[in-house]
Amino acid sequence: MSNKLWAGRFSQKTDKLVELFTSSIDFDKRLYFYDIIGSIAHTKMLAKQKIINDDEAYVIINGLEKIKSDIESDNFIFRHDLEDIHMHIESKLVDDIGEVAKKLHTARSRNDQVILDTRMYLRDETLSIIKLLIDLRKVFIDLAKKYLNVILPGYTHMQRAQVVLLSHHFMAYYEMFTRDTSRFEDACKRINIMPLGSAALAGTSFPIDRKYTANLLNFENVSANSIDSVSSRDFIIEFLSCASICMTNLSRLSEELIIWSSSEFNFIDLPDAFTTGSSIMPQKKNPDVAELVRGKTGRVFGNLISILTLMKSLPLAYNRDMQEDKESLFDSVDTLKACVKIYTEMMPKISIHSDKMLQSASTGYLNATDVADYLVTKGIPFRQAHFISGNIVKYAINKGVEIDSLSFSEIRKFSDLIDTDIFNVISTDSMINSRKSYGGTATENVKEQISIAEKCIENQINELKNEM
Amino acid sequence: MSNKLWAGRFSQKTDKLVELFTSSIDFDKRLYFYDIIGSIAHTKMLAKQKIINDDEAYVIINGLEKIKSDIESDNFIFRHDLEDIHMHIESKLVDDIGEVAKKLHTARSRNDQVILDTRMYLRDETLSIIKLLIDLRKVFIDLAKKYLNVILPGYTHMQRAQVVLLSHHFMAYYEMFTRDTSRFEDACKRINIMPLGSAALAGTSFPIDRKYTANLLNFENVSANSIDSVSSRDFIIEFLSCASICMTNLSRLSEELIIWSSSEFNFIDLPDAFTTGSSIMPQKKNPDVAELVRGKTGRVFGNLISILTLMKSLPLAYNRDMQEDKESLFDSVDTLKACVKIYTEMMPKISIHSDKMLQSASTGYLNATDVADYLVTKGIPFRQAHFISGNIVKYAINKGVEIDSLSFSEIRKFSDLIDTDIFNVISTDSMINSRKSYGGTATENVKEQISIAEKCIENQINELKNEM
Amino acid sequence: MSNKLWAGRFSQKTDKLVELFTSSIDFDKRLYFYDIIGSIAHTKMLAKQKIINDDEAYVIINGLEKIKSDIESDNFIFRHDLEDIHMHIESKLVDDIGEVAKKLHTARSRNDQVILDTRMYLRDETLSIIKLLIDLRKVFIDLAKKYLNVILPGYTHMQRAQVVLLSHHFMAYYEMFTRDTSRFEDACKRINIMPLGSAALAGTSFPIDRKYTANLLNFENVSANSIDSVSSRDFIIEFLSCASICMTNLSRLSEELIIWSSSEFNFIDLPDAFTTGSSIMPQKKNPDVAELVRGKTGRVFGNLISILTLMKSLPLAYNRDMQEDKESLFDSVDTLKACVKIYTEMMPKISIHSDKMLQSASTGYLNATDVADYLVTKGIPFRQAHFISGNIVKYAINKGVEIDSLSFSEIRKFSDLIDTDIFNVISTDSMINSRKSYGGTATENVKEQISIAEKCIENQINELKNEM
Amino acid sequence: MSNKLWAGRFSQKTDKLVELFTSSIDFDKRLYFYDIIGSIAHTKMLAKQKIINDDEAYVIINGLEKIKSDIESDNFIFRHDLEDIHMHIESKLVDDIGEVAKKLHTARSRNDQVILDTRMYLRDETLSIIKLLIDLRKVFIDLAKKYLNVILPGYTHMQRAQVVLLSHHFMAYYEMFTRDTSRFEDACKRINIMPLGSAALAGTSFPIDRKYTANLLNFENVSANSIDSVSSRDFIIEFLSCASICMTNLSRLSEELIIWSSSEFNFIDLPDAFTTGSSIMPQKKNPDVAELVRGKTGRVFGNLISILTLMKSLPLAYNRDMQEDKESLFDSVDTLKACVKIYTEMMPKISIHSDKMLQSASTGYLNATDVADYLVTKGIPFRQAHFISGNIVKYAINKGVEIDSLSFSEIRKFSDLIDTDIFNVISTDSMINSRKSYGGTATENVKEQISIAEKCIENQINELKNEM
Repeated sequence: MSNKLWAGRFSQKTDKLVELFTSSIDFDKRLYFYDIIGSIAHTKMLAKQKIINDDEAYVIINGLEKIKSDIESDNFIFRHDLEDIHMHIESKLVDDIGEVAKKLHTARSRNDQVILDTRMYLRDETLSIIKLLIDLRKVFIDLAKKYLNVILPGYTHMQRAQVVLLSHHFMAYYEMFTRDTSRFEDACKRINIMPLGSAALAGTSFPIDRKYTANLLNFENVSANSIDSVSSRDFIIEFLSCASICMTNLSRLSEELIIWSSSEFNFIDLPDAFTTGSSIMPQKKNPDVAELVRGKTGRVFGNLISILTLMKSLPLAYNRDMQEDKESLFDSVDTLKACVKIYTEMMPKISIHSDKMLQSASTGYLNATDVADYLVTKGIPFRQAHFISGNIVKYAINKGVEIDSLSFSEIRKFSDLIDTDIFNVISTDSMINSRKSYGGTATENVKEQISIAEKCIENQINELKNEM
Repeated sequence: MSNKLWAGRFSQKTDKLVELFTSSIDFDKRLYFYDIIGSIAHTKMLAKQKIINDDEAYVIINGLEKIKSDIESDNFIFRHDLEDIHMHIESKLVDDIGEVAKKLHTARSRNDQVILDTRMYLRDETLSIIKLLIDLRKVFIDLAKKYLNVILPGYTHMQRAQVVLLSHHFMAYYEMFTRDTSRFEDACKRINIMPLGSAALAGTSFPIDRKYTANLLNFENVSANSIDSVSSRDFIIEFLSCASICMTNLSRLSEELIIWSSSEFNFIDLPDAFTTGSSIMPQKKNPDVAELVRGKTGRVFGNLISILTLMKSLPLAYNRDMQEDKESLFDSVDTLKACVKIYTEMMPKISIHSDKMLQSASTGYLNATDVADYLVTKGIPFRQAHFISGNIVKYAINKGVEIDSLSFSEIRKFSDLIDTDIFNVISTDSMINSRKSYGGTATENVKEQISIAEKCIENQINELKNEM
Repeated sequence: MSNKLWAGRFSQKTDKLVELFTSSIDFDKRLYFYDIIGSIAHTKMLAKQKIINDDEAYVIINGLEKIKSDIESDNFIFRHDLEDIHMHIESKLVDDIGEVAKKLHTARSRNDQVILDTRMYLRDETLSIIKLLIDLRKVFIDLAKKYLNVILPGYTHMQRAQVVLLSHHFMAYYEMFTRDTSRFEDACKRINIMPLGSAALAGTSFPIDRKYTANLLNFENVSANSIDSVSSRDFIIEFLSCASICMTNLSRLSEELIIWSSSEFNFIDLPDAFTTGSSIMPQKKNPDVAELVRGKTGRVFGNLISILTLMKSLPLAYNRDMQEDKESLFDSVDTLKACVKIYTEMMPKISIHSDKMLQSASTGYLNATDVADYLVTKGIPFRQAHFISGNIVKYAINKGVEIDSLSFSEIRKFSDLIDTDIFNVISTDSMINSRKSYGGTATENVKEQISIAEKCIENQINELKNEM
Repeated sequence: MSNKLWAGRFSQKTDKLVELFTSSIDFDKRLYFYDIIGSIAHTKMLAKQKIINDDEAYVIINGLEKIKSDIESDNFIFRHDLEDIHMHIESKLVDDIGEVAKKLHTARSRNDQVILDTRMYLRDETLSIIKLLIDLRKVFIDLAKKYLNVILPGYTHMQRAQVVLLSHHFMAYYEMFTRDTSRFEDACKRINIMPLGSAALAGTSFPIDRKYTANLLNFENVSANSIDSVSSRDFIIEFLSCASICMTNLSRLSEELIIWSSSEFNFIDLPDAFTTGSSIMPQKKNPDVAELVRGKTGRVFGNLISILTLMKSLPLAYNRDMQEDKESLFDSVDTLKACVKIYTEMMPKISIHSDKMLQSASTGYLNATDVADYLVTKGIPFRQAHFISGNIVKYAINKGVEIDSLSFSEIRKFSDLIDTDIFNVISTDSMINSRKSYGGTATENVKEQISIAEKCIENQINELKNEM
């Protein structure tokens, strides 16, 4: 009647349109590796528990390994009528090794199998992303070390606000990506749980040893409730949330790179090798990489919304809707990895126009806060000092000059507590180095943070080595 | 230095990683057809305006047609270093016909070219979707005609509320998909606008004739502002909104099919050919199609959010972020079409368990409103009538029977205005056929709506024919 | 037992926590006006159809009008135990005019009543928004007329691309907001449908005249299917989609205003009255309005996603989930109106720094396309001309000058087809005025578009007048 | 000129429309408590560091405490011209205690102040939510203990799949909410970081002691980079992600409660006190609470998307857009807390119809897997056993009976390995208690998980006590 492995109770063949519509093989074939190593571990466990015998296990495992190498050498045919990667592999195994293959699916269901595959896949990819983020954070540390004497305007509301070290600015990104890393690490705890043996939804009556399987597959924990195991996808949504937040941070970096490479800002120059030209305008050199990263942010948000919508209001346990969890996940993994990787490559190659940055930092009354703070040290309450400094700014704007171009007598008119030492306070270097509050932009503070960051990275790398 | 067609001002070759990251050929090759017919129209216009001569136009057009047939016979190599479909075709044209090919890109840019391609693609697909929705609406009309004597409980809050005709229920979906159709038609007005000739963003100094090109390509209007032409993607977002709303309606149908095919409801039976089984549970027959349609809803929402996010805060005019508009669009088009198509196939094949529906309609006090309405006709204000009817329900629940199983004397206790004619009012048939308010569930009303719907569909089909 | 108007069949009082959790009065009281005029029309219809008598109608209508003025003079108590605005008004009517009030709810349900209220509310607000958008579009036309001789760089990828008229740039926004207007107009067709008389979901057995009610309330159409009437919220989602797209356009304007008012661009100066300062930095003047509009974009997207999620997979007909449709809708209406209004106020008050714009337009090789186009007119195929022009740009960059600062002999080296007339072609004015393709930036073209826009606005205003 | 505290450099008063548009006081007044205790800690630190003297600190602190009690006794006027809660409090302090109040804002900015307030608020609310989730989880444990002998069908694809204990089903929810709890705990690590002293963005030159302030306010860590401190909102997005996931889980519970309380399922009865009635249909008793929780899911998703959109592409450091982070956050906190709370109240009051559940579990071939597993124990490979069992199901469906109603000889026809002991295996109790795999539904396993859960909850409660 049908070639379907579940066809016992069916009287009609599946409609071709339905086969195509419900098939997931086009995207879940990507899980073949995890499906096979999961099946091998399952087989070993079945043998250890005497549910199958050792000879059967040997034949099955050999068969699975052959299929793995067939797939890897492109020697495997994928067909929509075989639905998904699980059915493809089981079906091929029956073709290759005969009846014994039909014992593989003992004490499991596709419901727990697909979650096993997905968890192993995502555990690997999350680890990959953590490593890529470490590389990116190292890039920011290196940039911070390299540009310790570059000063640029810090902006709020895209208006020049106060002078900061470029290194301090880069270390802000280090902090953001460090938090991203920690979020992925936390997510990994909830990914790294072994679901196999939950079977369809209720567990199984075969005397399986789930902890043994978990051990073979390097899982830290075994899931505690079989219904929950096959019903839940919160570990995927959590991953997509972490990815969305990380993309948000990458999009902000992108925005800055794009603005900084405009002719008007001209703070940086992107290497020709990381830009492209125009089909019509011969002069164009465009910051495409940054634009695309910014654009790909929406893609990851979209994937997050897809899976949230997917899971909304689904009754327990497994529903076929959940098949839709994979493409959004795969796409987000690929997108995030590509974006992190390309910035890790590109950031060190950017040319910094430190002269232009300094020049920008020198105009726009970025020392107005320091004037106010100076007045506070002379005994004026801050709010009043702020008002006086604001008046000095207004006066200077009307005159068309910066505060440091005003004469002492001009400034003095605004408060007789002002002395000539004010000019020391409002120099660019002094403004940087006076901001010694913890986490502030003073050179020594930034150096301290760089050193803390280096140790943190080193520890993380060592931990990752130990885990493997 | 580089094989890029824009490489004149560049000193470095594009980094391989960047080529891969920025390339769109994997997905925009799908636009090849529109790219080529757009280029042919452009070439004809250039010749008509004497910007190129007729011989050149002849050679270019032949070359383009050859490329089209090469692509269609899989005789064309796609490479990441050639970025996108536009560059692939132009580059191949140079290879094939030599120098004259270099005249093709006169008076245009990829910025207006890609929008031309996308608009032609989306115009065709929107028309396709309108046709598919017509087919689906016809299915609902046919079902409504077929099941005119089937009565089921109408639900609110998933609680049985009042009896309705199954035909009336199906015609509700007809109405929803009719509004979806009208939304796609409205969107099409804003899709069907010819952008070519906007060039990079400012228009061109070549004496082109945009209306001629528009005419060749069957466009109703020519865009009025060159900056807007290349900057805006609102027509894509609008399409995705329409698609999301339509998916919402499909998801509601899905939910009902899933619930109705549960053993507890048992209102319908899905054909074996439209269901699949379980890898572990031999008895299972699952409503996969409905579940997948429900699940795919999230996918289309996600695509909508992607493009909204993409466009948020982009300064004018073209930014490379916009390259990301295509995959979300293509995926939504494919998803929506597949979902509409499969329901058009499946809906007529569903078995209706009319006995089970009627039986459900007969219990659960669905006549309580009619009791209240009856009391109103006897002169009791509705709110008080509602209260009395509620008390009758409470009495019947406690007794464990339906209202029509109460004796006349039992009912009479609740109001001496009640007469024996009440039993006529609260029979299932009477409840259906008394609801004659326009749009109500009385059989004659439903027939009237079916007849209106049939005429509406007929008109739409005729209009579509005339348009072609 | 309970003060609830539906309490007949209940044995327990509603839990206080539940009353608070399920109450919607905090937000739906906003619909009081529509609820009352809807009830008045319903009453008139009931009387016309002899379902109630004229005296009863008179008393009910007077009672409703009194409640309306009570609410408007803040002389009305809202309580969570009365759930929603419908129950508040009906309950107060009973208190005020006694038993006859209990006849008001004849032949209707809250299910159709709330949809009537929402449709009337949204029809009014959509009309308001259309008017506000007309005002905003007029502002852009006025700006375009005022700044016809201001030239600035057009950007792609935030890189200077080609020179354009500021008027042309402003007219791009005119086009965007014109499409937004047309989307709201189309949405209005699907909003402007009268649902009352659908009752709970099945229609009613009372001999009502729905078209009469529709007429009294100025509705164009009456809904055709009672189940659909009370089940569907697509008109709300469509409105939110239109609002989201419009916010996208406003966010792009915001981004440009923010960037343009940076010190580095310095293209515009925002009026003090439309900016705010910093609590710490005395010199700051921030483009808060533009930033907040940009930020509020996310809010409207969020509201759209809320309602899409809400409606996903809801079985027919009414479900209580749908109560959640209101706050998102109200918030989006308020947000969009406030954003459009404040830009209508602010845009005319912005100072344009035309000198700075022109200066920016004069550097960055914005004439490279014109060099290429020039070469085409001399017979060189465009693609080759593009390459030559790119080489000229590379040469000029290395020399640190613009193309127009190169000597004739320097330029001539790149092609002996170049003549001295090239310098005419690459002047800023010439570049503007040569771009005469329809929709291009040449002054005469922009003037033509302004004149078309003025007529379009005039027509729309006249149409709106006729509608009222 | 202006009453604004930052008005020194301004020449115009803020436009009234702008004041209203930019004001945040309507919603951020909710932060008053945190703003004041933050300011008090800041004042103490300033005094300890001799930046102000002890007398000044004393007066300021008293003034702040007075304002706190003014606000709490509704004795405080909120005005849009004072922008936000920070300016309201500082401005009132100046009014109340005079000049010395102007010293409060020394060494800080609203940029770090608002983030301090938000972090303290969210830390408290996250802790609240964790406690509420503990309560909810205890409810599920209690339910699991209470209903240990209730059996119902486990569903996949809404089709009856295998029998499970109701306790096991409830414990699945326990697991979901436990993971939600752990996510909130992890998020709290990234919330619980002290930002004050970052000032505008660069730190401050005053000799502040940030760790002292952190200590006073019970923060575990001090932020390491002043730019990042004022620029980042990832802790808010992370919270909203956790809330969205938790709402997903609540929506699934809601869906089940709604379906279970339909007449067709009739698995449960909701208490009258937790349901409401219909304005038109006297018999209705609706599961409003569950419907509203399901509906509110969209609201929280929408809030998440709002803030993701908000933060996309914002350049560093503070931008006014970020003011929009609060309403979405507040609304999500309120929504999630209300939903968790009401389920904690409602769940124990639900009536369980255990007879109806058992009856459902007895039909629908839920023992088909056990037939297959039985055949495996007789030596038939699982896949073949599955096929045989499927055939038995098909035979039984055609006959219109369950498998256990077939005679031994009928079953025997499908395989001569079947013996009479098969009837032991396929009884409901046997199917439950044979599923002893870890996490399976066997009674003893469920008891084990309940006991683990009880210990886990106890530990968490103790930890929370120690933290306070």
